[in-house]
Amino acid sequence: MKLLEDKIMAEGLALSDSVLKVDSFINHQVDPVLMQEIGRDFAEHFKDAGITKVLTIESSGIAPAVSAAFFLGVPMIILKKQTSKILNENFIQTNITSFTKGTSYELTLSANYVGKGDTVLIIDDFLANGEAAMGAIRLATKAGAKIAGVGILIEKSFQKGRQRILDAGYDVYSQARVAKLGEGLIEFVREDD
Amino acid sequence: MKLLEDKIMAEGLALSDSVLKVDSFINHQVDPVLMQEIGRDFAEHFKDAGITKVLTIESSGIAPAVSAAFFLGVPMIILKKQTSKILNENFIQTNITSFTKGTSYELTLSANYVGKGDTVLIIDDFLANGEAAMGAIRLATKAGAKIAGVGILIEKSFQKGRQRILDAGYDVYSQARVAKLGEGLIEFVREDD
Repeated sequence: MKLLEDKIMAEGLALSDSVLKVDSFINHQVDPVLMQEIGRDFAEHFKDAGITKVLTIESSGIAPAVSAAFFLGVPMIILKKQTSKILNENFIQTNITSFTKGTSYELTLSANYVGKGDTVLIIDDFLANGEAAMGAIRLATKAGAKIAGVGILIEKSFQKGRQRILDAGYDVYSQARVAKLGEGLIEFVREDD
Repeated sequence: MKLLEDKIMAEGLALSDSVLKVDSFINHQVDPVLMQEIGRDFAEHFKDAGITKVLTIESSGIAPAVSAAFFLGVPMIILKKQTSKILNENFIQTNITSFTKGTSYELTLSANYVGKGDTVLIIDDFLANGEAAMGAIRLATKAGAKIAGVGILIEKSFQKGRQRILDAGYDVYSQARVAKLGEGLIEFVREDD
């Protein structure tokens, strides 16, 4: 998605060979016009997938996910990061460990909102090793839903997340695919790669 | 705002004299069409306030806040809940203690995104005792910004938050004002009260 790649080139901060900060338009300050276009682009890409719910993980995925849900004409669900297990049959949980951040949490979904008969699109801001996305897939699958695919704003294509999701049999659509990062260096995967 | 009051009457769950669950359209599942109308309503209400940034606290405020920011034509900022103090002069923090939830966190803002010359609208989903809203006001004030007001989706008018914010000299606009809650009972503040 050219609009997002242009924004990353203009405002993204490559701090090392693995860290890309996009705090000025996605993660801390949020550009609402960009979010609208991002949502429109996801909706266009997945328009024939029969999606009934858009799922995202709090909190940076919420702004793009609510826009995608708006254009798809379906509800959005915020998967919560709980610090502890909930002993209630109405909640479904799965443990996520982020190696990059050194954190662990229980990704949580109420069975009231996703179930058999649902086809879900999972949206997240970043795809690196795929821990969060694979967790969201596990959770939605536990709930009985079909997975239409995973929509990502920024994919670190040099990490294993994309391949893990593809290997598990799911579609991944990333709006910006970063091939290489370095201090002050950002390179995208070219279309013909 | 009639649309929100109608939705609360149709889907809100009053569990006690203080707990109102709106998990089916605001806090867990999110209705994107309602979020758009909520944002449009905030933008209309604050259109002459000279707002340059919309601030919200992660994560239930993000969906309505990004919509308000879109209609106001300004960026949105997500105030982060950090568990610890950040020792970096570029970050501004203030401690928030939620008595209802029994939690405490450092509300965090990067000085890169809000400063002198900014006039901010603070948006949050619920207003109860006003701890979060007053914290967001402190944070934006520390950053040098002017406060245009506080925009709330659901105000528990029987708690002290609204009066605290008014007493501190700030405007509060709540789209739905709940006068009374009980098991299965929801009453709104009438316009002529």
